[in-house]
Amino acid sequence: MGGEGGEKAEEKSGCIWRWRLKMVVLILMLRLLALFATAAATLVMALNKQTHTFAVATIGNTPVKITLTAKFQHTPANVMFVIANGVATLHNLLMLAFSFVNDKYNLKGLRFLIVATLDMMTIAVVSGAATAIAFMGELARNGNSHARWNKICDNFERYCDQGSGAMLASYIGILFLMLVNIVNIYELRRLNSVN
Amino acid sequence: MGGEGGEKAEEKSGCIWRWRLKMVVLILMLRLLALFATAAATLVMALNKQTHTFAVATIGNTPVKITLTAKFQHTPANVMFVIANGVATLHNLLMLAFSFVNDKYNLKGLRFLIVATLDMMTIAVVSGAATAIAFMGELARNGNSHARWNKICDNFERYCDQGSGAMLASYIGILFLMLVNIVNIYELRRLNSVN
Repeated sequence: MGGEGGEKAEEKSGCIWRWRLKMVVLILMLRLLALFATAAATLVMALNKQTHTFAVATIGNTPVKITLTAKFQHTPANVMFVIANGVATLHNLLMLAFSFVNDKYNLKGLRFLIVATLDMMTIAVVSGAATAIAFMGELARNGNSHARWNKICDNFERYCDQGSGAMLASYIGILFLMLVNIVNIYELRRLNSVN
Repeated sequence: MGGEGGEKAEEKSGCIWRWRLKMVVLILMLRLLALFATAAATLVMALNKQTHTFAVATIGNTPVKITLTAKFQHTPANVMFVIANGVATLHNLLMLAFSFVNDKYNLKGLRFLIVATLDMMTIAVVSGAATAIAFMGELARNGNSHARWNKICDNFERYCDQGSGAMLASYIGILFLMLVNIVNIYELRRLNSVN
């Protein structure tokens, strides 16, 4: 209240306020990047489709052709990938929206705990989906002689490349989500030592 | 110091101390359970091997037999699974060991941040490995007619079941790791509001 003490307290509170604002902007930017990455992964995978025409035999001089289409829905891992990245995109959108909601619903930092838990779960699910299609892609590229599963990427190269692109985007999304989570925890820790 | 204020402060500090002890014991127990789960997943998968003898043809009255062995090393996803769960086990062991190290190396809660980050990364990696073998197992059980990959679990049933068991253990490990992480963050939050 007035005097030197009051000014100091005001200065300190202003300093904390500026620092919190910086952190909030940092988290918003990181989350926006994660949102773009997971949205890109969802779209790139959901639009993954390639049609290939093979000449399977020749009768006289006429080649017999069959046309096969590789779609992302043909592999369950890809379906889970699209769902997981879609959910992660939605999660990021909701968290972005919630960060503009007034702090009075904070309930002694409970909001922070919920956000951190949801972030962690999203990371786990998206990481699972991305790793699953990584190994499915490896199988599609190289086959597995032990199980007599043949490679299919020699015929559907663009399909496989597009899947790899989606996987890469998803991993980038996970990286940004992890950064969001680390910054979040760091902020809580620093609030802890500042107060 | 002394008088009523001192007693109250002492009481409060004792209360916090007891509460912290409870939290530490809870985290230790949860981490121990996670350790057991990931260690079990590693062992069950690493010991997964089944030999099966097929009758492929009959020459006269003599059946022609071939013997095939399914080993976990035949699928890259399984190798990654063993490594990931092994690393998670090691991580849990190290964290258990570190929790008995004196608090003076805490560096203003930085230790907490590092533990939370490592936990998060372990969750992501183990979740990826478990989901990858989940989809590999689905493929082995049902095959994929689009890619002309045949199921193999009809011949190697025990092999597939053992893989599923390892997967289940791994998911339980992830669950306990998530609980450790949530309790950790909750503790930091409460320290924040108590101080």
